[in-house]
Amino acid sequence: MQKKFLEVKSLYRNSDEYLGKSVSVAGWIRTSRISKSFGFIELNDGSFFKNLQIVVDENKIDNFAEISKLPISSSLLIEGELVKVDNAKNPIEIHATKVVVEGESDSSYPLQKKKHTFEYLRTIAHLRPRSNTFSAVFRVRSVVAYAIHKFFQERNFVYAHTPIITGSDAEGAGEMFRITTLDMTNPPLNEDGSIDFSQDFFGKEANLTVSGQLNGEIMALAFRNIYTFGPTFRAENSYTARHASEFWMVEPEISFADLEDNMELAEDLIKYIINFVLENCPEEMAFFNSFIDKGLLDRLDNIVSSDFVRITYTEAIDLLLKSDHTFEYPVEWGCDLQTEHERYITEQIYNAPVFVTDYPKDIKAFYMRANDDGKTVRAMDLLVPGVGEIIGGSQREERYEVLMDRIKEMGLKEEDYWWYLELRKFGTATHSGFGLGFERIIMYLTGVSNIRDVIPFPRTPKNAEF
Amino acid sequence: MQKKFLEVKSLYRNSDEYLGKSVSVAGWIRTSRISKSFGFIELNDGSFFKNLQIVVDENKIDNFAEISKLPISSSLLIEGELVKVDNAKNPIEIHATKVVVEGESDSSYPLQKKKHTFEYLRTIAHLRPRSNTFSAVFRVRSVVAYAIHKFFQERNFVYAHTPIITGSDAEGAGEMFRITTLDMTNPPLNEDGSIDFSQDFFGKEANLTVSGQLNGEIMALAFRNIYTFGPTFRAENSYTARHASEFWMVEPEISFADLEDNMELAEDLIKYIINFVLENCPEEMAFFNSFIDKGLLDRLDNIVSSDFVRITYTEAIDLLLKSDHTFEYPVEWGCDLQTEHERYITEQIYNAPVFVTDYPKDIKAFYMRANDDGKTVRAMDLLVPGVGEIIGGSQREERYEVLMDRIKEMGLKEEDYWWYLELRKFGTATHSGFGLGFERIIMYLTGVSNIRDVIPFPRTPKNAEF
Repeated sequence: MQKKFLEVKSLYRNSDEYLGKSVSVAGWIRTSRISKSFGFIELNDGSFFKNLQIVVDENKIDNFAEISKLPISSSLLIEGELVKVDNAKNPIEIHATKVVVEGESDSSYPLQKKKHTFEYLRTIAHLRPRSNTFSAVFRVRSVVAYAIHKFFQERNFVYAHTPIITGSDAEGAGEMFRITTLDMTNPPLNEDGSIDFSQDFFGKEANLTVSGQLNGEIMALAFRNIYTFGPTFRAENSYTARHASEFWMVEPEISFADLEDNMELAEDLIKYIINFVLENCPEEMAFFNSFIDKGLLDRLDNIVSSDFVRITYTEAIDLLLKSDHTFEYPVEWGCDLQTEHERYITEQIYNAPVFVTDYPKDIKAFYMRANDDGKTVRAMDLLVPGVGEIIGGSQREERYEVLMDRIKEMGLKEEDYWWYLELRKFGTATHSGFGLGFERIIMYLTGVSNIRDVIPFPRTPKNAEF
Repeated sequence: MQKKFLEVKSLYRNSDEYLGKSVSVAGWIRTSRISKSFGFIELNDGSFFKNLQIVVDENKIDNFAEISKLPISSSLLIEGELVKVDNAKNPIEIHATKVVVEGESDSSYPLQKKKHTFEYLRTIAHLRPRSNTFSAVFRVRSVVAYAIHKFFQERNFVYAHTPIITGSDAEGAGEMFRITTLDMTNPPLNEDGSIDFSQDFFGKEANLTVSGQLNGEIMALAFRNIYTFGPTFRAENSYTARHASEFWMVEPEISFADLEDNMELAEDLIKYIINFVLENCPEEMAFFNSFIDKGLLDRLDNIVSSDFVRITYTEAIDLLLKSDHTFEYPVEWGCDLQTEHERYITEQIYNAPVFVTDYPKDIKAFYMRANDDGKTVRAMDLLVPGVGEIIGGSQREERYEVLMDRIKEMGLKEEDYWWYLELRKFGTATHSGFGLGFERIIMYLTGVSNIRDVIPFPRTPKNAEF
């Protein structure tokens, strides 16, 4: 048997090159229908969403009896002729001349053809990537990650690796996980009975990062345009379908750029990602549209062809107050927008993606640039139909004195921000950035509603299996 | 002033398009030489390694006096005509007609033109990306990361996000950092006085990953070809120039593929990366070759044009024993190869990259495929001149019984590997993979000899600043 196994994807995409020829493939049995002397195996080799049909014939292969009894998920090495068939859905098949059993599966294989719940499939995370749904989700995840890198690299952005372990708690975006190598049963103590973290690995308290933004600003003020793309963490005991303890974030940061530039970048990025995945994963996207979320492709087409709306927070509040809709959370200027408000704006009022800008400073972070009105900051959130907020960002406060006042006003410790402040001292510049939750965009693109189902091995409270 | 600031990189690369026209740029003063009425500013905007010369003339701009006194690292917005000059190194300059001071720097700016040590520059990690060396290193880092994604994605590999937080200590590649949200001064205890980790965030002990390989195998046995690219951690109190506590790893894993396929993939990857960085970062690579490592470009050219040598460990030991070289660590069959041995093989014996395969099983990990000789396993290390080992990998043990025996033999706990073992039960397949330390390859490509200088914000024992 020839050693180089062709990928099923290339047989589908370049079938003319191989038709009538003898080819070798390798893969796993997804299903099989085999009668006494003849049968069909649906083989999946992982290279492609679709299976390849293998025709096995007692007269053509010498181990037909063995093959006919194999449980699903057994792996095979196959040699045979690639043949064109009159079937729009599966226009090619292989007529096997040799079949080698690489790894026989077992009848206890848990991923049988009957429909399983997503909850059950999470308990077999080592096998669920072999199902249609998860093979599609994780391939789209990979392709979207690449789309993000491609988008930024083609625009000359520098990919900045910001640290995962942080010695500062200055990021201020949520509860953090502590990292330690101290013996927790017998930790070294200070005289006052507190833990002596000077003896810990990093010589002080250390945590897992919640955002790369502050470090990203360092890089943007050297390279002009940068992006981060890495894991971030939240130690929140949140059991919702939208929160995980470990997730990936994309955080571009651009210098000599204000909030308008920031919104333009965000709009370009979202449209680029959608177009890229539609072009590169047509089979997967059709599957999601049929089996996960019926309106998905229409919704994505709508996004790509829309001009994103831009309104201020104050305008948004006015619109919500003027609507005759009754909200669970009352609306008034100064309130944080809840998901119900966000979705009403983007779905009912505009039916298009909407940037909301210039939020009250009291509900936003210390680093956002203050407006002259003394009440609002140059924040932006991007709201999309079906989800609500998908991006949050801002123009950053670039003025040393204003930033220092804000740090003091919010009771933060100046010494925790020494280098962040120095960026404003040694050649400060207008700059802006935003964060895109990577899993959020995957959920949006696939229609999958639980974040646990778009991460291969999700981490949530009380769960770090696999 | 027009709002869109052109990138200095595009002015250099597409100068014909802009010559004689009025353009806007923005950036930071790297140096300036300004006399009474006339002068030159070397502007760097972060988009490009090289500066752009700005000519300022008292008669052309109305704030000449202000501009002439600015400290370096001040940021400017500039409008002027792009002019061709007879200078091979810097063939273009801007004759400014308007200069706006965006952010005035301070004379205390620590990154003055005088030569600083790398040690000192680590203490100003928020500013060092603005120096020639670090701007070159971190841009190459970004471009190499992209090259890696591009290489794998163009070959239809799935990018698999393996977890950072792991509830297992089954990875077995080094000391781990513990993650906890317990109150360390007053942790919950079991009756025997040990910590009750069932009350911790994940309901059990959790650590930072040391390798994505075992999870990567899950994905490879679904998608055939996958790669991981993410941060990994070692809690080792190692103060060498080659070890960091947090670093990025690339770990491809390929199914229906043996050690030969694995070596072929590794060789293709290394050559692809080198060609990509030479093509996309010519200015940076020329800089490294001149100022960091004089033989760099020759060494890289040698790698790209070499066929990588393939020898077994047993052959390597024979060659070392036959040499008349005296090693610090004695050589005998069964010993682990030290850096001095590795470098002797790749530099003195072959002057080419060398794969060494089939190591004694006792010095390699439990998951490597056993050879029929009962003594060796299908491991491979790639040794390169100037560094030694840069890649380590193996064909994985795909036989359930053999793997189980090995797990028992090494005193590992079977229950920690239940899903890893099940991969061998439900359609196992020949598969292989390797790990490439991302920082190692950056050091190799730049000639930078300390890992702390190829990571923007390095984490090492007693150090988690920035």
